[in-house]
Amino acid sequence: MMPLPPGSRIGILGGGQLGRMLALAAAPFGFDVHIFTDEADSPASRVAAHTVVASYGDGAALRRFAEGLSVCTYEFENVPVTAVETLLAEGVPVAPGAAALAVAQDRAAEKAFLAGLGAQTAAYGLIDGPEDAAAALASVGLPAILKTRRQGYDGKGQVRLDRPEDLGPACTVLGNRDLILEGFCPFEREISVIAARGWDGQVLAFPVTENHHVGGILRWSQAPAPIAPDIAAQAEALTTAALVALDYVGVLAIEFFVMADGRLIANEMAPRVHNSGHWTEDACTTGQFTQAIRAVAGWSLGPVAPWQPARMENLIGLDATLWRKWEFDPAAKLHLYGKRAIRDGRKMGHVTVLHKD
Amino acid sequence: MMPLPPGSRIGILGGGQLGRMLALAAAPFGFDVHIFTDEADSPASRVAAHTVVASYGDGAALRRFAEGLSVCTYEFENVPVTAVETLLAEGVPVAPGAAALAVAQDRAAEKAFLAGLGAQTAAYGLIDGPEDAAAALASVGLPAILKTRRQGYDGKGQVRLDRPEDLGPACTVLGNRDLILEGFCPFEREISVIAARGWDGQVLAFPVTENHHVGGILRWSQAPAPIAPDIAAQAEALTTAALVALDYVGVLAIEFFVMADGRLIANEMAPRVHNSGHWTEDACTTGQFTQAIRAVAGWSLGPVAPWQPARMENLIGLDATLWRKWEFDPAAKLHLYGKRAIRDGRKMGHVTVLHKD
Repeated sequence: MMPLPPGSRIGILGGGQLGRMLALAAAPFGFDVHIFTDEADSPASRVAAHTVVASYGDGAALRRFAEGLSVCTYEFENVPVTAVETLLAEGVPVAPGAAALAVAQDRAAEKAFLAGLGAQTAAYGLIDGPEDAAAALASVGLPAILKTRRQGYDGKGQVRLDRPEDLGPACTVLGNRDLILEGFCPFEREISVIAARGWDGQVLAFPVTENHHVGGILRWSQAPAPIAPDIAAQAEALTTAALVALDYVGVLAIEFFVMADGRLIANEMAPRVHNSGHWTEDACTTGQFTQAIRAVAGWSLGPVAPWQPARMENLIGLDATLWRKWEFDPAAKLHLYGKRAIRDGRKMGHVTVLHKD
Repeated sequence: MMPLPPGSRIGILGGGQLGRMLALAAAPFGFDVHIFTDEADSPASRVAAHTVVASYGDGAALRRFAEGLSVCTYEFENVPVTAVETLLAEGVPVAPGAAALAVAQDRAAEKAFLAGLGAQTAAYGLIDGPEDAAAALASVGLPAILKTRRQGYDGKGQVRLDRPEDLGPACTVLGNRDLILEGFCPFEREISVIAARGWDGQVLAFPVTENHHVGGILRWSQAPAPIAPDIAAQAEALTTAALVALDYVGVLAIEFFVMADGRLIANEMAPRVHNSGHWTEDACTTGQFTQAIRAVAGWSLGPVAPWQPARMENLIGLDATLWRKWEFDPAAKLHLYGKRAIRDGRKMGHVTVLHKD
């Protein structure tokens, strides 16, 4: 693809904070951003040129949205593949493509894909009915985490299991089908690699990030991750292999566990900009949002070298009321998403703290 | 004023590139930006939550715009004072205020104001009819520049005079009234000071910038300006005095000439973010747009220390078609304003080049 000229119209499926930060990153290129979302008054729509509010299954609305788009991307992996197919049928290139979506939407497909690249994954078993439970338990062992194969995020749709007798009730709670039982990995560290690939195949990875989750929600990240260079290189190589295998265009994130013996376990991937990469927008020459726009718009990728180490803290739920805490900190860059209602566990914003070294 | 909480609504009078960049800077605070402009499909409206398109004289439209605004600012000094008064009457604080507007809208008032602060200005004479021409010429001398007192920008409404016989025709071209004849200053350097003042009176100035105009339009700036520290201090002190005298809240720019003998001549002021400060958004901890938002929203001012020297080039008219030139430059930060039509002399964007030292 030739680089899109200023004035081109870029579509984003999804109106949340990632769409908002993508839209903000698109503005300095002179691109117009159009948002498609099923949420009225969304965070992204308030910084975009135009918004279509409709269900992701509404073909007519999608076709209206497609008008004049030079390219479309998405900000969350649970957008229905049919929505992407509708846009493609209208002649709108969608990046990353439907293949990446299909893999990322199904934890079983994702594990198989990562294993196919040579990655180690957690032991897992699929459960599509009560009759599968015993076999899955036998092959995976305990402790384990029972998850829905689809639609989970931020720890939702997950139950941790420590005793065999908890599996049955947990399966019932999660719907008894399309479940995956994953062996628990007693990791030493969680890390993620965020990398971009352009239409021309160019690949650039940001420095590896270390992540800390509480209750399935990312609380804070720091970069660069304090890990051995060969482990970082291995994680980056696997991410590059995933980008190439999917003929991917845009920004991709893969989360890994680092075990005490140095083994790397691929945990999950997100076919989009990622919470653990928010620090890049404040600390790198080209941040992940700008890079995603450059990639999908056919521009060459920008340099990613960070100026300084950074720490990113999520502001979750009532954390967002503590914004005055950051007002006077000269090293803190505050980012609030404009969400109207504060709810427990809801990501309201984040703050990047830049460390002078 | 207490700092505005996230979710507050900030109004901006004007829909051009300065309004656009102010709106982009407001987003990370979670503020919603509403734009008032007389231009349909304006650069700012495409990154704002809501836009009212109407004439600045339309009181009903201004009152509609005022609804729910916590504070309002403006992006150009030619907004009618009556528009600001309408908003104030609706209970909306406007920053900077009407006093700053009134001074900045009239070159004669501006010169008197700056002189009242102890600044040197160019010699000048007012012309309100053909009968004033001879006296103005006698007191100012030649070469000189004849300007309209109001509504000029980017070299518009100006004629340079080298011969006495050119004055009569120039007065006719510019309307024969409300004119000012300014003595030409054979300066060694043009500089500007951009500084912010908060509701609490805190003042912070960015490093002094050196500017290069061609045909009355800023072509490029570099910062910090290569001038003696005492000259920089003098320019900063005068800018601070102006902020205090106007009880100013927001970002103010004052342009100065530096003469060969080191004298400083105050040229003009702009009660807003300024083209010569665009480099700050890429090179300082807090850029001028972010600082303006912090100031008018009642937040403490952010630290302004620049990370590295910077050079800003305007992309004027057809320059905007050369964006590919910057695509591969890792030190260049491109900013395009999303203007639909390219016109001679129209500011289409700018690029900041960061110099590693």
